[in-house]
Amino acid sequence: MAVGDYPFPVMPPVAGVAIATAAAGIKKPGRDDVVLFALSPGSTVAGVFTQNAFCAAPVKVCREHLAQTDARYLIVNSGNANACSGESGYQNALAVCASVAEQASVTPAQVLPFSTGVIGEPLPVSKITAVIPALCRSTQEDAWERAARAIMTTDTRPKGATRQVQLDGVTVTVNGIAKGSGMISPNMATLLGYIATDAAVKTDALQQLLREAAGLSFNRISIDGDTSTNDACVLMASGQAGNAVISDANSPAYAALRGAVIEVATELAQGIVADGEGATKFVTINVSGGGNHDECLKVAYAVAHSPLIKTALFASDPNWGRIVAAIGYAGVKDLDDKAVRVHLNDVLIVEQGGRAATYTEEQGQQVMKGEHITIGIDLGRGSCRETLWTTDLSYEYVRINADYRT
Amino acid sequence: MAVGDYPFPVMPPVAGVAIATAAAGIKKPGRDDVVLFALSPGSTVAGVFTQNAFCAAPVKVCREHLAQTDARYLIVNSGNANACSGESGYQNALAVCASVAEQASVTPAQVLPFSTGVIGEPLPVSKITAVIPALCRSTQEDAWERAARAIMTTDTRPKGATRQVQLDGVTVTVNGIAKGSGMISPNMATLLGYIATDAAVKTDALQQLLREAAGLSFNRISIDGDTSTNDACVLMASGQAGNAVISDANSPAYAALRGAVIEVATELAQGIVADGEGATKFVTINVSGGGNHDECLKVAYAVAHSPLIKTALFASDPNWGRIVAAIGYAGVKDLDDKAVRVHLNDVLIVEQGGRAATYTEEQGQQVMKGEHITIGIDLGRGSCRETLWTTDLSYEYVRINADYRT
Repeated sequence: MAVGDYPFPVMPPVAGVAIATAAAGIKKPGRDDVVLFALSPGSTVAGVFTQNAFCAAPVKVCREHLAQTDARYLIVNSGNANACSGESGYQNALAVCASVAEQASVTPAQVLPFSTGVIGEPLPVSKITAVIPALCRSTQEDAWERAARAIMTTDTRPKGATRQVQLDGVTVTVNGIAKGSGMISPNMATLLGYIATDAAVKTDALQQLLREAAGLSFNRISIDGDTSTNDACVLMASGQAGNAVISDANSPAYAALRGAVIEVATELAQGIVADGEGATKFVTINVSGGGNHDECLKVAYAVAHSPLIKTALFASDPNWGRIVAAIGYAGVKDLDDKAVRVHLNDVLIVEQGGRAATYTEEQGQQVMKGEHITIGIDLGRGSCRETLWTTDLSYEYVRINADYRT
Repeated sequence: MAVGDYPFPVMPPVAGVAIATAAAGIKKPGRDDVVLFALSPGSTVAGVFTQNAFCAAPVKVCREHLAQTDARYLIVNSGNANACSGESGYQNALAVCASVAEQASVTPAQVLPFSTGVIGEPLPVSKITAVIPALCRSTQEDAWERAARAIMTTDTRPKGATRQVQLDGVTVTVNGIAKGSGMISPNMATLLGYIATDAAVKTDALQQLLREAAGLSFNRISIDGDTSTNDACVLMASGQAGNAVISDANSPAYAALRGAVIEVATELAQGIVADGEGATKFVTINVSGGGNHDECLKVAYAVAHSPLIKTALFASDPNWGRIVAAIGYAGVKDLDDKAVRVHLNDVLIVEQGGRAATYTEEQGQQVMKGEHITIGIDLGRGSCRETLWTTDLSYEYVRINADYRT
């Protein structure tokens, strides 16, 4: 199940970013489950990672390697998360890096490992290292869709986005792919995401750009409120486009590239929500009129995480009482219930502490029938606003997650 | 659906606490949906209420009336929550109180109103006031089970508990009933609960006793993480038993009564969890080894609220990776993942940041097959501990909450 129709876009190559995929048989035989990204020399790389205290072994290794140098290779597997795998899991992640490094004649620190899939099973290292020589030989710049498919787990469709932007008269491309469908909650890049550009950007500026973009996209989505152990998002810049190197976050070129990267990241993040496990609705939660951003987010998360609201959305039931209850328990200090206004799309449903006088159940039902629903909440106490994207909670969500390992 | 077999207990009368029920046809015709408690003169009454900013009109009125005087009458309806009902809802709650006051020759402030059911519909005041004369005429001390049934909404069975305890050689009775099945999360009495004793207790001591008991019982359960707008729990003391009046929380009599009230409240709270919407499992979460109580509760709530863990519990799947992930994102600062140990009942499943060496999937499956499951989490960084009770997340939960209003 998934909301709407999200065809994979036609993605131009990003010069200096080559990709290969292979079927290593990690969980299911015969499907691509390993991806190698090869970056041209001089590329810069930025990463943001899960804040989960039980972060997976590859996340630990990524952090260590990125602290040492820019990466030249990224090796990603689906089917096994190498998470909660203790010291041997850490050694396994290093072993995969070492294998790539040997084949590609780089140092192990120039390789970043990523894993997604079942937690707590030992990573089948030899299956992965067996396909690395072929991966290193077969990289090509037009394999984005294959890569997007190879990193899928419970995803029902691959997710990609692309933009082009002019920097100092030079056309620069930004491509991105992502996976994610469950265990999705905004606390740093809640998924695997790979965004690449042929722009030339210094590492520090690239890291700042990625932080800003993730904060407005991947960190603003929630499917089930569970923050994964493996979340990682990487932004790569090959520097092959020929633009003047961006080293300063205040430059016009930075701003232009930032816009394109945010658009790509937002499209990927929204694609993840639309493909949320069992999702039948794509829900935008706009909270405005907040005294500060934190309280806007508290309210947005309370609404996004409420199983009662999510089941009502699934039932296309404009059960505004549950929305109001969630606003009420979100923890906003001294909230004046009479000042709060709630809209479903353009329909005012709540004001003055109760149902709006103009509201009719028919209006609410009309909105709820749609696949795309916006819940607008005005707290009536300030000028801050925040937006979050989420899904409903369906039978299918329960089925997927009750059956996942069996 | 509900876990286990919880027959309604044989409850002795509480002298000075008389009860009547009636069918007012608020939501469904022909079932009791209004309850009147009549307390003998000189009774003391304590209450704890929801922290939800959108608290329902009856909760506002209860707080105002309790601040003025001890109550003599409690009037409870199911089928309509009179919540998010604005100024007219507040006036409706007052009108019900005024009607009882007139019939019973007390002041309106001596009447406490309670409502539970659908949010946002106008309270059908005339239906309720129509049955008040008959209620006032028909109170009797042996109607506890009828009252427990009349306050039910999505509950599948009535919930009652009873204890007797000796105070200074006098036998004192503590009876309690409660309702609650969904919109259950620990932030003050998450439900309607009525506990009565014939002991004599001053109002201040009674209020302290209720706070302590609710903190260890109703505030330690979670079904769906949604805090209701109508939560209320009342403790009534008629003073008819003949014990020396308890005015001091340090007295032996207070301690003895406290023990009985906590047992009654805990049994009611656990009964609510076992009857949680769609529940097929009763889950106890014990968090130990915490540096403080707050971090123990954070971890317990993260596990209790995780839809991924709850669906795995429903599937009887020992998916310990999801438990570990929830511990990791609970927000415990500087948590050492290698120090954490997790048990399912007596089976050690996680240590040293990964699956325990001694653990086998068969052991985990054996535990998960049971209806009663204990998840034990030792954070390995202190001596604080907390316990929480929760349920799984089933198809039935989605069905109940997708269909509730239709």
